[in-house]
Amino acid sequence: MRFLNWMPAALQMPEPELIDHAGLDSVVYLRIYLTGLKIFVPIAIIAFTIMVPVNYTNGTLEHSNLTYSDIDKLSISNIPPGSQRFWTHLVMAYVFSFWTCYVLKKEYEIIASMRLQFLASEHRRPDQFTVLVRNVPPDPDESVTELVEHFFLVNHPDHYLTYQVVYNANKLSELIKEKKKRQNWLDFYQLKYSRSQSKKPSLKTGFLGLWGERVDAIDFYASEVERLSKEIFAEREKITNNPKYVMPAAFVSFKTQWGAAVCAQTQQSRNPTIWLTEWAPEPRDVYWDNLAIPYVSLTIRRLIIAVAFFFLTFFFMIPIAFVQTLANIEGIEKTVPFLKPIIEVKAVKSFIQGFLPGIALKIFLIFLPSILMLMSKFEGFSSISSLERRSASRYYIFQFINVFLGSIITGTAFQQLNKFIHQSANDIPKTIGVSIPMKATFFITYIMVDGWAGVAGEILRLKPLIFYHLRNSFMVKTEKDREEAMDPGSLGFNTGEPQIQLYFLLGLVYAVVTPILLPFIIIFFGLAYVVYRHQIINVYNQEYESAAAFWPDVHGRIIAALVVSQLLLMGLLGTKAAAQSTPLLIALPVLTIWFHMFCKGRYEPAFVRYPLQEAMMKDTLDRMREPYLNLKDSLQDAYIHPDFKGGDDNDSDLANEDWELEPALVPTKRHSQKTTPLTSKHGSSGPLLSEVQEN
Amino acid sequence: MRFLNWMPAALQMPEPELIDHAGLDSVVYLRIYLTGLKIFVPIAIIAFTIMVPVNYTNGTLEHSNLTYSDIDKLSISNIPPGSQRFWTHLVMAYVFSFWTCYVLKKEYEIIASMRLQFLASEHRRPDQFTVLVRNVPPDPDESVTELVEHFFLVNHPDHYLTYQVVYNANKLSELIKEKKKRQNWLDFYQLKYSRSQSKKPSLKTGFLGLWGERVDAIDFYASEVERLSKEIFAEREKITNNPKYVMPAAFVSFKTQWGAAVCAQTQQSRNPTIWLTEWAPEPRDVYWDNLAIPYVSLTIRRLIIAVAFFFLTFFFMIPIAFVQTLANIEGIEKTVPFLKPIIEVKAVKSFIQGFLPGIALKIFLIFLPSILMLMSKFEGFSSISSLERRSASRYYIFQFINVFLGSIITGTAFQQLNKFIHQSANDIPKTIGVSIPMKATFFITYIMVDGWAGVAGEILRLKPLIFYHLRNSFMVKTEKDREEAMDPGSLGFNTGEPQIQLYFLLGLVYAVVTPILLPFIIIFFGLAYVVYRHQIINVYNQEYESAAAFWPDVHGRIIAALVVSQLLLMGLLGTKAAAQSTPLLIALPVLTIWFHMFCKGRYEPAFVRYPLQEAMMKDTLDRMREPYLNLKDSLQDAYIHPDFKGGDDNDSDLANEDWELEPALVPTKRHSQKTTPLTSKHGSSGPLLSEVQEN
Repeated sequence: MRFLNWMPAALQMPEPELIDHAGLDSVVYLRIYLTGLKIFVPIAIIAFTIMVPVNYTNGTLEHSNLTYSDIDKLSISNIPPGSQRFWTHLVMAYVFSFWTCYVLKKEYEIIASMRLQFLASEHRRPDQFTVLVRNVPPDPDESVTELVEHFFLVNHPDHYLTYQVVYNANKLSELIKEKKKRQNWLDFYQLKYSRSQSKKPSLKTGFLGLWGERVDAIDFYASEVERLSKEIFAEREKITNNPKYVMPAAFVSFKTQWGAAVCAQTQQSRNPTIWLTEWAPEPRDVYWDNLAIPYVSLTIRRLIIAVAFFFLTFFFMIPIAFVQTLANIEGIEKTVPFLKPIIEVKAVKSFIQGFLPGIALKIFLIFLPSILMLMSKFEGFSSISSLERRSASRYYIFQFINVFLGSIITGTAFQQLNKFIHQSANDIPKTIGVSIPMKATFFITYIMVDGWAGVAGEILRLKPLIFYHLRNSFMVKTEKDREEAMDPGSLGFNTGEPQIQLYFLLGLVYAVVTPILLPFIIIFFGLAYVVYRHQIINVYNQEYESAAAFWPDVHGRIIAALVVSQLLLMGLLGTKAAAQSTPLLIALPVLTIWFHMFCKGRYEPAFVRYPLQEAMMKDTLDRMREPYLNLKDSLQDAYIHPDFKGGDDNDSDLANEDWELEPALVPTKRHSQKTTPLTSKHGSSGPLLSEVQEN
Repeated sequence: MRFLNWMPAALQMPEPELIDHAGLDSVVYLRIYLTGLKIFVPIAIIAFTIMVPVNYTNGTLEHSNLTYSDIDKLSISNIPPGSQRFWTHLVMAYVFSFWTCYVLKKEYEIIASMRLQFLASEHRRPDQFTVLVRNVPPDPDESVTELVEHFFLVNHPDHYLTYQVVYNANKLSELIKEKKKRQNWLDFYQLKYSRSQSKKPSLKTGFLGLWGERVDAIDFYASEVERLSKEIFAEREKITNNPKYVMPAAFVSFKTQWGAAVCAQTQQSRNPTIWLTEWAPEPRDVYWDNLAIPYVSLTIRRLIIAVAFFFLTFFFMIPIAFVQTLANIEGIEKTVPFLKPIIEVKAVKSFIQGFLPGIALKIFLIFLPSILMLMSKFEGFSSISSLERRSASRYYIFQFINVFLGSIITGTAFQQLNKFIHQSANDIPKTIGVSIPMKATFFITYIMVDGWAGVAGEILRLKPLIFYHLRNSFMVKTEKDREEAMDPGSLGFNTGEPQIQLYFLLGLVYAVVTPILLPFIIIFFGLAYVVYRHQIINVYNQEYESAAAFWPDVHGRIIAALVVSQLLLMGLLGTKAAAQSTPLLIALPVLTIWFHMFCKGRYEPAFVRYPLQEAMMKDTLDRMREPYLNLKDSLQDAYIHPDFKGGDDNDSDLANEDWELEPALVPTKRHSQKTTPLTSKHGSSGPLLSEVQEN
């Protein structure tokens, strides 16, 4: 049991310290698992004391000719049609829904106040004083910089402090990336040379080093690096001096948080599509490429992506099926007949037959989050956190349709869609509802394979381990490469959260139908909570801090799962000749949706807007603590394109860290994971991870 | 033709003068009719040159056994299934949709700029500087008045000017109404006495003057009036001095429009359900009863009303059918057998048989707008304009379901609902689409009976005339009563606009299917435009000014009609074996909805928020024009409950008029209708109206 030593350590760190250490985002992310436990543990207890006996003490399945498992005996399938016992399920549906809503409301309340507290208690950060202004209109007489300064001097005379323009640094980024690559090769060859002084390394300058003039490798890369350095310098000069490189967007800073709060929440100009203001994201959270997209283009992109996502969700099987038809033996033999002798070798043949058809789908599913992320990027969001949030909702919808519905009603999403279009609104929940109890065993397996095993893999960091070894053998050339290959990554909201939501959905749908599924879900939530708590403390880097801006999405998706579960139960009971209960069940989704609207009005503003009262309080405190602080100097360089800063191999966190370290009012016991990723091995990392790090 | 003399006069007044004279609301209301003309005249021309020939040159109906009218020969019914000619209809659907969207976009653009111009160019008004604050939280230490003052002094220190609390004046209102009634009786008896000095009028004090002590009428009412005056005075004292009468809401005024714009658009407190701020409505637009509803109660009310409206829309036939079964001869004879001899009289019997069943429905439909208005009031909106907007959308939905769908698919709304639930999503547009061409004749009749005749009745003011005469004979006692009976009323957005929208819907649905309907619609829009322009200039009073805040609703409903028309065309073509066109038609609603979202983002903010740039400009101008104006004095009494002002028979417009007359920078040629309703008869009122006014 020494294997589990890390567990108590992971659970011991108190929440405030955890916020200090890993950020509010991570802490609230952990609360999603906690919410799962809070919802499902009491539900499971009630279900097992009340519903399992009610279901089990029937003989329907025994007297029927159907094949059934013991799990089915505990489910709603065991109750004869028209039985009065369905009243239990009806009442339980109400109890479970009310309990879920109660937990959700409490959670929303706590997280909203945590967020406000976090924003209020935090050290001074540039994003608290800064507003991102997009779509600065073109002006024939003034440059963007002058225009921004004048506009805010006129319209926010008492509060405006300074601005930072956004430069188009795409070419610069490329040059810097290029230089980094060359520098790496230079290091590699120098290392090689220092190890074996006998022979100076040389290379050919042509394509892939296969032909061309043979030159001295160290000299070649040294001169290349120097050339690129000069070009970078020139490009930098050009960007600063040529107004054409200034994009129509700017970060405008204010003297007070009150001023920034006002500017971020109000409309500036008559034309609501120019001078768009919003709270600036954290400097490291800014997604620079998207800052200069005009309004019309944004709306068109949104339409394109909506249509593309629809096709992706419902028709993704078509290209995969096409690849699969190509990827069978006959297909390959027909397309490339000269390969026939190789294919006919037995080992190769069985590999192709066994793996290839499945592998196309697997590859697609592995790349799906990246595809969704690309779609979000194209859509034009301006911060990494919002990109991840958007990708997460798309991923959830995809999983709902293709994993949840796809497993219940077998057939591709398009076939389902076609079926639903030709079915009445009344019959859809029935069709799905009827299949629900039959699929319980499948989903229990799914939870164990995907959920439990996934969590276990996460603590062993199997995937990174494999990736690390692959990289280490093929691509690592210098010490720096190894460091990069060892990057533990971050939490990955866009893939992790939709996965959790699937378990919420399964739990809520099966709570009334087959309560035996609940313990599996509870084990998943419990296990995942401990594991991810450990990973957050000891492994992950924090990529950005959005102060739990994702919670309204999480809340909304749980509510959606609740409504789906209610509709499916309605459908199921509708086929069980328990028709008298249907009108009573209709009230449930209505009330749930109302509850969602109530929460939206009551708590969501805390995640979108920033109350003036808070801003004023913070301003007053700040003025008292540091009356002579020169805010302008410290804000001047906060929002600079990461590639545009001093060094070449600069870190985008640099400016931000200056900020965070500066007031240093709340000392932390542990060092931040971000700057010193290696110290944690002395802490309490998983056994295999240590191996990775020592490797 | 002398009868039509008023027409040119009505059309001559230029738009800016009309805005001055009747307000922006009325002018933009007229633009709805103009929009109808702009959309349908070009569509009709294209339809008649292209589609009518395409439809007419088929022989499908001639060779079929169906009975058909000439109108049907011009419609899509005349085209054989599977014909290539359906491509014309497909292309035309695109052309018409694009044209409609183009007109809508232009219109939205114009009206948004008219609104901003109106807000900017207008004389200084109290609502430009004032914000309505609702849900002031209870505080153990401070009264509401202190709390409001402190909160805004702290959180808006540079801009806060003053506040006015809202008093609970419900009892006062009752007393004043009572006094007014008694005063009227007093006037009546005094008049009677002055006419015939012979006999002093007397009355009995008991119930309805039927029994009780006989007293001198003049003395009795004089003493009553005096008693009530004293009570009113006491109540007023009590309200001012007792803090319990202060409701948790206030009108907070700012020194600058910039300050008010900031406060109205931002969140004030951590808890987003308290200290709710919004632009104050105009003083005469305030709906005082709803100012103090707490947030939770508001959301619950919204749920209740949503459910109630659902039942009203789909089940309103049940009570009416019940009344109808009671209201037949046998039913009455059974329920009240002693009436049998009377009922058996032939005249009475035929009256009951002919009228009673229909009359229950008619009465319900007459009272429907009032019912919807009551629902909106219960829902808790704080201004009369928003109450009317809400009632209008509900009325439109009711009409869409019960008039439009109800006429196409005969059967009550509930039967339709039941049918739709049991039908597939694919079949619903088909079911409706197929019936569309068959109902063209019915809708042409409907347009003539309801539309044309309604407009004609409006110019003749038939309904007010009848009401006036009824009132005059039964209820008018004094000169004041007559004046009140002659009140021409106001535009009535909540009943008028949904009616217009029905014609938009019919026009868009039939444009492709049966273009012969279009001229009837064009005549309606043209006629209505002229008539309502006349009425607005010469008859109606302006009740409030919301600066065209209703346009986003109007726009949204036309878009909804467009989408419905596209879906129904899809359904119709689906049954015509023109299946290859369906995928092409799907793009149309998608694009239309996208267009709606684009417009929403681009133009709606102008109707919801107030740009800071505009506010700053206005402030600067104001400061230059009147640098020493004492804003506080003029704002101090702007928002006082109408019953709480100086006089008893005060006019709620009084304070507002002071404001409007004060700067008087834009002289108007005509006097405002509002203060001098009788001068207009020398102008150009309709012939029957003059009779009314001279009566």
